[in-house]
Amino acid sequence: MLVEDEELIRNIVEETLDDGGFKVVLADTGEEAVRLLGSSGSKYRALVTDIKLGRGTLSGWDVARHARSVDPELAVVYMTGDSAAEWSSQGVPNSVLLTKPFAPAQLLTAVAQLLNIGGQNPS
Amino acid sequence: MLVEDEELIRNIVEETLDDGGFKVVLADTGEEAVRLLGSSGSKYRALVTDIKLGRGTLSGWDVARHARSVDPELAVVYMTGDSAAEWSSQGVPNSVLLTKPFAPAQLLTAVAQLLNIGGQNPS
Amino acid sequence: MLVEDEELIRNIVEETLDDGGFKVVLADTGEEAVRLLGSSGSKYRALVTDIKLGRGTLSGWDVARHARSVDPELAVVYMTGDSAAEWSSQGVPNSVLLTKPFAPAQLLTAVAQLLNIGGQNPS
Amino acid sequence: MLVEDEELIRNIVEETLDDGGFKVVLADTGEEAVRLLGSSGSKYRALVTDIKLGRGTLSGWDVARHARSVDPELAVVYMTGDSAAEWSSQGVPNSVLLTKPFAPAQLLTAVAQLLNIGGQNPS
Amino acid sequence: MLVEDEELIRNIVEETLDDGGFKVVLADTGEEAVRLLGSSGSKYRALVTDIKLGRGTLSGWDVARHARSVDPELAVVYMTGDSAAEWSSQGVPNSVLLTKPFAPAQLLTAVAQLLNIGGQNPS
Amino acid sequence: MLVEDEELIRNIVEETLDDGGFKVVLADTGEEAVRLLGSSGSKYRALVTDIKLGRGTLSGWDVARHARSVDPELAVVYMTGDSAAEWSSQGVPNSVLLTKPFAPAQLLTAVAQLLNIGGQNPS
Repeated sequence: MLVEDEELIRNIVEETLDDGGFKVVLADTGEEAVRLLGSSGSKYRALVTDIKLGRGTLSGWDVARHARSVDPELAVVYMTGDSAAEWSSQGVPNSVLLTKPFAPAQLLTAVAQLLNIGGQNPS
Repeated sequence: MLVEDEELIRNIVEETLDDGGFKVVLADTGEEAVRLLGSSGSKYRALVTDIKLGRGTLSGWDVARHARSVDPELAVVYMTGDSAAEWSSQGVPNSVLLTKPFAPAQLLTAVAQLLNIGGQNPS
Repeated sequence: MLVEDEELIRNIVEETLDDGGFKVVLADTGEEAVRLLGSSGSKYRALVTDIKLGRGTLSGWDVARHARSVDPELAVVYMTGDSAAEWSSQGVPNSVLLTKPFAPAQLLTAVAQLLNIGGQNPS
Repeated sequence: MLVEDEELIRNIVEETLDDGGFKVVLADTGEEAVRLLGSSGSKYRALVTDIKLGRGTLSGWDVARHARSVDPELAVVYMTGDSAAEWSSQGVPNSVLLTKPFAPAQLLTAVAQLLNIGGQNPS
Repeated sequence: MLVEDEELIRNIVEETLDDGGFKVVLADTGEEAVRLLGSSGSKYRALVTDIKLGRGTLSGWDVARHARSVDPELAVVYMTGDSAAEWSSQGVPNSVLLTKPFAPAQLLTAVAQLLNIGGQNPS
Repeated sequence: MLVEDEELIRNIVEETLDDGGFKVVLADTGEEAVRLLGSSGSKYRALVTDIKLGRGTLSGWDVARHARSVDPELAVVYMTGDSAAEWSSQGVPNSVLLTKPFAPAQLLTAVAQLLNIGGQNPS
């Protein structure tokens, strides 16, 4: 699921995820994201969310915490222009933060790495 | 800093940390921990905290988020009997969760690993 | 080397690997894969294998164990629809498991990450 | 659970684990280990096993695969004098291999790291 | 920044990075790279460098050490045909080494992984 | 091997390593360390070195680079009071840096983690 209030960025990010082969469901406020996530089950495998979500009162930090309480295994990627410093206190464990501007390859690698099980460690 | 409301456990954990060579400052409520952490600087290098802190209204999750907003680099270790399932949504990034009962070696390895810079990856 | 008994999936996966710049050698049974791997040397740098390989008696778990005994450094990626639960007991160390359906970006990131030496750890 | 056929080494390893605060259950053959592990549930949190188990036909590689099929989350530590080269093809994912002779601190760190949830990555 | 003395390879690598969405600044000697990096600040977010840089006396190992002294957080990727064995003694911490020939997907994953903050660990 | 020019610290660190079960060989200058390391083979499994080595002209950074050129697999731990900022440009890959003052548990965990093969990743 992709949560982003700015239409231009939402379209670019959606296209990038689509190019990488991911199916995307859109939400443009934190409130809509929470409604779509529901209260149980795991219809979604990953959450890609902006931090500042203009309309509504929920931030991306809030959406991710709610999403992880519904599905503890959900992949979480934050996108932010100026909230990177808060990740250490507001982010959830095992999440990735992308600072804008970021390259499409960074987004695809982030989502893919979070979804893949296992992996070889650097040596 | 060690935050634990039960005196018996607090003493055992303090002794373990002391045996490992760490200097320990104690707090028995989340409120006292927040007061000691202050609002800036980094007097402490690690936070070892229980989740349910009997007296007071702050949980270990709250204390850790506050502590990381004061010092984004702080090492964070949670100890819990039955709140492990919430770590994925309530924990901070790069923290360790120990489920009670745990062995002293687990606590020392957790704190040491969080404080050390670098490291070789498994291969 | 790509080991997959279903032609449709084999073609899609081959195209994805080709798009990422990897040269692909195909095998459609575990027996053929073992024959191609030979008994020594390291002609291949990575093994991408389905778990259930219709014809023949070898599974993807068997092929990977044989391949690693020939080349201990070989990158191993498993693709599976319903055998993910067995990875913990049947998989080899430092391997990646992709659960079907997966996105092309997941496959490319898995193979690339396993082949690259070193890497920065998340922080 | 500790599986080791040589009494001398078994006693030293047991003492080390005991010093680290771990409770130890002993088995001196692979067959006995498999019997103790049973066919379901997770009475044990970690398996520390020698590779060559003199009496009986099961190796430490076999015991670990069986143990992980019973409990996919089980921590697995192998101890070996001369079978290290086989770990890449015979070991289970997320296991640690200690080459003899090893220091007590290596064993305690291995078990503790495997049991702890989360952790900060090297940076 | 991309440092590569052979024009053919430089063009291919530049195109790959461009396809992944990264903006590329070129240097064809180590000396030019050092001049562009300057002595402070962090105009660049990543360094992708060949090891043997024909003209000039600086190697890719030298360029990376200089670059990290200017910006300790800089992402570093080495590309090499035959100097891989020196990485363990000459490389900087948290760098990636690609052995030629490598696939475009390996380069993009390497740079992306180094730039992304956080990440889920393999499990 | 332990390289430290200050006798007091050398004794404390030696005792800590000894308590953890490691056999220690001492050197009090970088020059002596290089002489002991020789030019080939791998008599030692780990190097624990101070950065500023009073007498002589070699620093701990130099000793580690030399040691890794002799044995690319050597575990490397740096101890420093004020040179931590240089690790990113002067350290070798897969090394650990301890900032003084550090607890004995940090040193033992660092050496043990570097020597152990494999390991479970945080989840």
